[in-house]
Amino acid sequence: MEDDRISLAHGNGGRFMRELIEEVFARQLAGSQLDVQADAVAIDLGDGEVMITTDGFTVQPLEFPGGDIGSLAVHGTTNDLAVSGARPMYLTLNAFIEEGFEIARLERIVASLNTAANEAGVKISAGDTKVLRRGEGGGIYLATTGVGVRLPGVRPAMRRIRDGDVMIVSGPVGDHGTAVMLAREEFGLRGDLISDAGPVMALTEPLLALDGLRFMRDPTRGGIASIGHEIVKATGLGVRFEATIPVREPVQSVCEMLGYDPYYLACEGRVVAVIDPSQVDKALAIWRAVPTGREAARIGRIVADQQRVILETPLGGERFLEELEDDPLPRIC
Amino acid sequence: MEDDRISLAHGNGGRFMRELIEEVFARQLAGSQLDVQADAVAIDLGDGEVMITTDGFTVQPLEFPGGDIGSLAVHGTTNDLAVSGARPMYLTLNAFIEEGFEIARLERIVASLNTAANEAGVKISAGDTKVLRRGEGGGIYLATTGVGVRLPGVRPAMRRIRDGDVMIVSGPVGDHGTAVMLAREEFGLRGDLISDAGPVMALTEPLLALDGLRFMRDPTRGGIASIGHEIVKATGLGVRFEATIPVREPVQSVCEMLGYDPYYLACEGRVVAVIDPSQVDKALAIWRAVPTGREAARIGRIVADQQRVILETPLGGERFLEELEDDPLPRIC
Repeated sequence: MEDDRISLAHGNGGRFMRELIEEVFARQLAGSQLDVQADAVAIDLGDGEVMITTDGFTVQPLEFPGGDIGSLAVHGTTNDLAVSGARPMYLTLNAFIEEGFEIARLERIVASLNTAANEAGVKISAGDTKVLRRGEGGGIYLATTGVGVRLPGVRPAMRRIRDGDVMIVSGPVGDHGTAVMLAREEFGLRGDLISDAGPVMALTEPLLALDGLRFMRDPTRGGIASIGHEIVKATGLGVRFEATIPVREPVQSVCEMLGYDPYYLACEGRVVAVIDPSQVDKALAIWRAVPTGREAARIGRIVADQQRVILETPLGGERFLEELEDDPLPRIC
Repeated sequence: MEDDRISLAHGNGGRFMRELIEEVFARQLAGSQLDVQADAVAIDLGDGEVMITTDGFTVQPLEFPGGDIGSLAVHGTTNDLAVSGARPMYLTLNAFIEEGFEIARLERIVASLNTAANEAGVKISAGDTKVLRRGEGGGIYLATTGVGVRLPGVRPAMRRIRDGDVMIVSGPVGDHGTAVMLAREEFGLRGDLISDAGPVMALTEPLLALDGLRFMRDPTRGGIASIGHEIVKATGLGVRFEATIPVREPVQSVCEMLGYDPYYLACEGRVVAVIDPSQVDKALAIWRAVPTGREAARIGRIVADQQRVILETPLGGERFLEELEDDPLPRIC
């Protein structure tokens, strides 16, 4: 057995597994007061309504400009709580690690996960590790479950959406998807684009004070086009994206070269909000005052006449954004 | 794309993923009121102290006598709450599915998971699905996080263990590990042994009323020998297993043939409890009155003179049970 790589014995409940958990996970996650001995641990949630969510992570490459699978596993799950109007408090962590994986790399990933957890204000409260036989796993997969408490204010929900509501986004779309794709180098493209992956609580929490807030979602897999389809499915209304959707120049270029559509690409640190038209300016002002929301923009509106997702083009035309079928970019999150 | 198998497009956030989630997961888990549209959902935990745990599952073969990876993903996680003195209430589910996986098989596994969840009294409150490229996953991996509320009575904990305490087990050990191993057929052995995988709440909950209860744990990966080592590590005391540990005849035979030690093999429906000697008879009587506890037995005691895990043999000898190093049976849970 090589000392610097994961072996099957790291997953068997014996000495090597204990050492891996103590020396990598417990050490890197020291701030989280993780009790690696307990079958289950108590978590203090105070009096609020408890919210829960879960997410799996398979991103490839495991490390990319702006993050890695560890930080992503924190942001992806805590952001789902944030857009639901909750403050994330606890996270559980499952790691599926392939035999032969470098322990130094695992340490980097767990350290990055710990930094992201501190930034998001969550404690890692429970964890589990399984080792996959060589060839039966793509390096490492993570799954995180987040528990939080609902904050006072509006309870954002799809069913609050009304005809005439306006959609805004907190920043340019597609940075994460494009940054991960470029990091793969399989297209022979290079760029200095950085993933937008990061916490969104600074964006979501102040919006809960606006009674015109209807709904929030982070445009991850499937991008903003898929949020459009989810709204159409749930409300029976239509979504009309306007020609104002912010897309960075390198994202636009890569999409043009490869025939992708940036509206289907994943973000991991953006928020789409649906707002009563009378409070859109207020919402945009709140977001633009936050570092991660400086490039916030209005991107569309809810309409009743067509039950479709429509994109208005800069020259005054329009096209339908169909529901995503083929996967343009597998293992993006 | 073949209609009856998982494709990468089942993981991309678009139409195929929505259909997979609606037609397999939401349909099979209908009783759980799973909201497949929400980013995070509210869970009602009442007033008690909230407990949380998480576990990953990679068992191979995915289906074995007495269960499958779906039922195991429920029992493994809810049992960790049960032995901690909590009543399991909610479960989140992550599925990592390999491209090419048969959808009919996925349906069987999710249906079995649903049956086990109903039996354990837990609701599946949130879920996520990722698709792994063909060759990058062993069929399907699951991760579940369980949330429960601490029950009144004793708070079982390793630090309550005292010199002279007695260890009991709720039934024969090693059935799960052996049944899974035989199902692999790689040793050319056959047998009609059935895994012990199942819920343990009927065993753990009544024991909380005994003030002599110190600690409970389910002997999964690493078996009862590893529980012995965990106790030694945490308490500085020794564990002396007696020659009374119940092992079924077919488990014993397989172990003798293959050179395994049944005390290191996994159970998925047994409980080991450490009890004050004055209440051992009471605890055994409680367990023997429960169908899953009929074969409950005293298996050892806590000693102060040797900080080791010792096994007494039927002929009056003894040997050390060392901490597990090599993995005798990977992918057992």
